[in-house]
Amino acid sequence: MARITEHYAKLPASYLFPEIGRRVRAYQAAHPDARVIRLGIGDVTEPLAPAIVEAMHSAVDEMAVRETFRGYGPEQGYDFLIDAIREHDYAARGVAIGGDEIFVSDGSKCDSGNIQELFALTARIAVTDPVYPVYVDSNVMAGRTGPAGADGRYAGLTYLVGNEANGFQPEPPQEPVDVVYLCSPNNPTGTVATRAQLERWVRWAHDTDAIILFDAAYESYIADPALPHSIYEIDGAKRCALELRSFSKRAGFTGVRCAFMVVPKEVTGVGAGGQRVSLNALWSRRHSTKFNGASYVVQRGAAAAYSPAGLAQTQAQVAFYMENARLLRDGLGAAGFTVFGGVHAPYLWLRTRDGATSWEFFDRLLTEAQVVGTPGSGFGPGGEGYFRLSAFNSRANIEQALERIRRVFGNR
Amino acid sequence: MARITEHYAKLPASYLFPEIGRRVRAYQAAHPDARVIRLGIGDVTEPLAPAIVEAMHSAVDEMAVRETFRGYGPEQGYDFLIDAIREHDYAARGVAIGGDEIFVSDGSKCDSGNIQELFALTARIAVTDPVYPVYVDSNVMAGRTGPAGADGRYAGLTYLVGNEANGFQPEPPQEPVDVVYLCSPNNPTGTVATRAQLERWVRWAHDTDAIILFDAAYESYIADPALPHSIYEIDGAKRCALELRSFSKRAGFTGVRCAFMVVPKEVTGVGAGGQRVSLNALWSRRHSTKFNGASYVVQRGAAAAYSPAGLAQTQAQVAFYMENARLLRDGLGAAGFTVFGGVHAPYLWLRTRDGATSWEFFDRLLTEAQVVGTPGSGFGPGGEGYFRLSAFNSRANIEQALERIRRVFGNR
Repeated sequence: MARITEHYAKLPASYLFPEIGRRVRAYQAAHPDARVIRLGIGDVTEPLAPAIVEAMHSAVDEMAVRETFRGYGPEQGYDFLIDAIREHDYAARGVAIGGDEIFVSDGSKCDSGNIQELFALTARIAVTDPVYPVYVDSNVMAGRTGPAGADGRYAGLTYLVGNEANGFQPEPPQEPVDVVYLCSPNNPTGTVATRAQLERWVRWAHDTDAIILFDAAYESYIADPALPHSIYEIDGAKRCALELRSFSKRAGFTGVRCAFMVVPKEVTGVGAGGQRVSLNALWSRRHSTKFNGASYVVQRGAAAAYSPAGLAQTQAQVAFYMENARLLRDGLGAAGFTVFGGVHAPYLWLRTRDGATSWEFFDRLLTEAQVVGTPGSGFGPGGEGYFRLSAFNSRANIEQALERIRRVFGNR
Repeated sequence: MARITEHYAKLPASYLFPEIGRRVRAYQAAHPDARVIRLGIGDVTEPLAPAIVEAMHSAVDEMAVRETFRGYGPEQGYDFLIDAIREHDYAARGVAIGGDEIFVSDGSKCDSGNIQELFALTARIAVTDPVYPVYVDSNVMAGRTGPAGADGRYAGLTYLVGNEANGFQPEPPQEPVDVVYLCSPNNPTGTVATRAQLERWVRWAHDTDAIILFDAAYESYIADPALPHSIYEIDGAKRCALELRSFSKRAGFTGVRCAFMVVPKEVTGVGAGGQRVSLNALWSRRHSTKFNGASYVVQRGAAAAYSPAGLAQTQAQVAFYMENARLLRDGLGAAGFTVFGGVHAPYLWLRTRDGATSWEFFDRLLTEAQVVGTPGSGFGPGGEGYFRLSAFNSRANIEQALERIRRVFGNR
């Protein structure tokens, strides 16, 4: 008798984005002429930068010739990419990261879903609320939680509520936890942690012997040069934090698939016998057992994002999306919305209108303005009453979306 | 206190292929002039087929233009690839598979490592011995076993010994198990299951309500048209088996990364409350929570392996490797070796000489013939006294390797 896991059944039947897709398709089927503008899922729309395109073509050509063909690569990633990451993302900001502390993967969703495997099933996990759902769901699926309560919260998880009072940057927990997931610039709220806030987290991690899983997938959207891009810019973080990075939003790689995780050798957890165990060794073992490296062609493309031309081109893309974010922020503000985020992140987090729930607001925006966003409650109960809009779209679509929103909600 | 998993520590410190790499590097450092020929890890050497190269270039060009740029794709894979798989791998062999029963991924190593997540931690797992290590290690890491005994076997796993007496095709277990991993054509032994043997497995799975995880990564190497390529060619298999396929060896994708798994909707396991649960729904949930689709460029390349030109070109590559296998088989036989496999698989499985252990034979072959293979004991205690050679190399290297082996071991 093939006994299956009991934990998947704890998840709600419908995952956020499939449910959005279902509602949009239903609306579109009933209104075939409506031109729906999608600011829901955070997916890039600009084409790949020319330097990346050129590098990928070259890599495909290498694969076409016996002498330069590449089979299995190193599971951790090729040195040409790891060295570029070390130099540009870390050394340039005064952070020394070893080549064997960087693990290239096919995406941050995989990394953030898989990293929980390193921890004991009894480990106490803390997440912010609202939160990127993968952190929660992957722990539910692994069996680290009980069922969800009526409020949508899982028994056994520690929720750290982000709200307007704390600027969506909750304080470290009072109760003991083993691991906390932090995301800054934050998905979904678009807010960013200051240096002082990160310092408080690192101090807390040292004080409580906890580990921080720091998701910096949106770091390239940080506009203020005084803000840290990496948690390793904080003293002591290399002893208590892993960092996740992605090329998805930094270089338009959502369909190309490349990311990496930094697992410093000094970060240790506690084994069943009380011994200290290096997380680098554990992740290396997981990577070499269950992963076979990211595609060579993809890694060449990612490395090209660090060339002088690649940097200039991808930074221009980021600037383009951030101008979209500014337009959205200003336009929504003028339409009377209370808006957060959108300054150091491609996401805007708005309070719904007239006391609408997140899904009520979703339906209203879809049916009255033909604009798709993401209901805040999809990111956890703390997101109820809020709504996420993404700045990833063409300028024309952003302007059109704003015009429609103004039409529906009026100018203040 | 960050408590870590207690299960990774059950694995031996050294994984098979890193240990081989270590020994080869040490030998090479001591003998810088030696030209080592690698028939160890099963990695392709022929360049990508022209049809695949062309398709990947086109896909890169699409990504360079806003109108044809692709961001996040469907997590399950693009229809253009799924439809090609359905038609060529299944419908052409009389097997009807639904589009939503195929899940495209970035590699079979990931799929075979991740699939165990669907089963209860109390599920009893059966593997053959020798075996592809990922099946075992991923279950050890998940906590489905006790520690390894002195014989290298993990408490709580059921081992089905393949040996010369059963042609390395063990019978179904007598004791109750939940799940069995089968690999045919087999890695490492190079042997293949007959239709009658597969029928016995399917009957057993029905009789005991077990699930078969059927790894057919090497199906394109099957030479005899009477042999099944898919387990779904056996009546009733769609109710009890999942099938893993890969483009790695079928189309030279070891460095490109693409694979897929078939999870028929009729396959069910038993939940904690005794209810039947569809594995398709569970895998779909896992895929959409922890994976974000394979690279668009890669999927276009994989689909091109099914075009008329792509089929002809990749079949010629397979034929080339299989001629290598024939040369190895004949040459090793002439040198007095007892050889298995290599007829329907790119692997040869030989008995070591003079009672040597697998690692003793590895060292002898490396130091005396400068040929690298894989010690059979690395695939489990049942592989002790055997040795795997891969047929993936240039013709010149295969011939050179044979000449050296003949020089060391003589002709019979």
